[in-house]
Amino acid sequence: MRIVRCKGNEGQIFTGCQFNKTTATVIRGDIFSGMEVTNQKVVVKELLSPVNPAAILCIGLNYKLHAAETGASLPDYPVLFMKNPGAVTGAGANIQIPVSCLEPLQVDYEAELAVIIGKTAKNVKKEDALGYVLGYTCANDVSARIWQKHSGGKQWSRGKSFDTFCPLGPELVTADEIADPQKLSVECRLNGKVMQHASTSDMIFSVAEIIAFLSESTTLLPGTVILTGTPNGVGFTRNPPVFLKPGDVLETEIEGVGMMSNPVVAERI
Amino acid sequence: MRIVRCKGNEGQIFTGCQFNKTTATVIRGDIFSGMEVTNQKVVVKELLSPVNPAAILCIGLNYKLHAAETGASLPDYPVLFMKNPGAVTGAGANIQIPVSCLEPLQVDYEAELAVIIGKTAKNVKKEDALGYVLGYTCANDVSARIWQKHSGGKQWSRGKSFDTFCPLGPELVTADEIADPQKLSVECRLNGKVMQHASTSDMIFSVAEIIAFLSESTTLLPGTVILTGTPNGVGFTRNPPVFLKPGDVLETEIEGVGMMSNPVVAERI
Repeated sequence: MRIVRCKGNEGQIFTGCQFNKTTATVIRGDIFSGMEVTNQKVVVKELLSPVNPAAILCIGLNYKLHAAETGASLPDYPVLFMKNPGAVTGAGANIQIPVSCLEPLQVDYEAELAVIIGKTAKNVKKEDALGYVLGYTCANDVSARIWQKHSGGKQWSRGKSFDTFCPLGPELVTADEIADPQKLSVECRLNGKVMQHASTSDMIFSVAEIIAFLSESTTLLPGTVILTGTPNGVGFTRNPPVFLKPGDVLETEIEGVGMMSNPVVAERI
Repeated sequence: MRIVRCKGNEGQIFTGCQFNKTTATVIRGDIFSGMEVTNQKVVVKELLSPVNPAAILCIGLNYKLHAAETGASLPDYPVLFMKNPGAVTGAGANIQIPVSCLEPLQVDYEAELAVIIGKTAKNVKKEDALGYVLGYTCANDVSARIWQKHSGGKQWSRGKSFDTFCPLGPELVTADEIADPQKLSVECRLNGKVMQHASTSDMIFSVAEIIAFLSESTTLLPGTVILTGTPNGVGFTRNPPVFLKPGDVLETEIEGVGMMSNPVVAERI
């Protein structure tokens, strides 16, 4: 099933499926504990993130060529950092460049496969891990590089937690529709130009290994979203560097999962 | 007002006030959007964290002497990292040492003043920041040092996100009861011995400055818990180092806010 969360014409928020760009079929209940597809169709005015994350757990440096382009050595274990859940936005929504990130430009893109945990997971074995996955969606781990590094005291959270820095969508594709999460192409396009293109088969730690690792002595709540790392080709490692600027359009596409487009604007305060 | 969240005799969860070690008066409604104190008294079987955090934002290196003892230079801005919300536990609850952290011991204590955000905050000025605080509670930013550092790829989240690594409590003390959050003593005792003792007046960045910084271009959701940093005296900087071990009792006390006691046990799986 392909699940959306959206705003209707009167601003009401609903969960739906069979989204066809203009309408969706309403789903009743809760996608984690039990849902029912109704016969009701509604007009979709705006796509929201398909989930309100209980937490956003992110894995850094999970593709070999990306680790290499940043100058980092290969990690012994998955490298965990987190994003503030307020950073979430939907497919089609604007990515806002914060006032503090306009001069110089510093905001970068990172296309990623996002995993949505469906049930409480703790001390899960790698062999069982994919059974805890409700589904997948496209994510972009938008990152303000100066804040991520020097100004953030080398902890990455501040530079990755500004509002709109975590677009998710357009749909949550349930796990049964993805035969193998390690055989998907991931692509990021900026104004139509391919900036990142790789296969999830190049991940250093697989989705199953990441879930096993993160759940070790640790409860992953239903609705936890895991961003599984980005391939090479990010903007700050290019010569000259490429950063997002107002007027850009960022596209994040994952094979079998979907394509998410986000215009870039400057924050207005 | 001093607010608790607790389990009653039949396992029901409720919010209350006037907690006197055995009973509390039930509060109806939601502590963020509107609550009403009832006449109903209930027996308290177990204290829970006074809030279920929307997110746990933590400030590192926010006391000068602590930055010095870790060998870090003073930060230009507050250093942000996050803890998984699944790590939360209550006053009186066991702190569990994860199986992977028993040999060698590596789990350390960090007593901290926790701030609970009461309403949506974004681009808040320092002068207005304390108006967004619902209240304060005691926190301990329990940290597995090997995971926090080398094995965590130098990102601190993994070592700070194990279950029970974020005890909060015993009560949420509403902001009107704390005349000045920068004039409170913070103390941590291990088996009765004082390990940390300082005043929040020694913070590098004040509570108001932290809220202004974190809300810059960033939405802090109601229920966001901010851990404001720990003073000097943590275990790993001592000679010889001191780490938590099964059988220990950890006490975290903040003047005017409360005292939280947590026994230490080994995780059983």
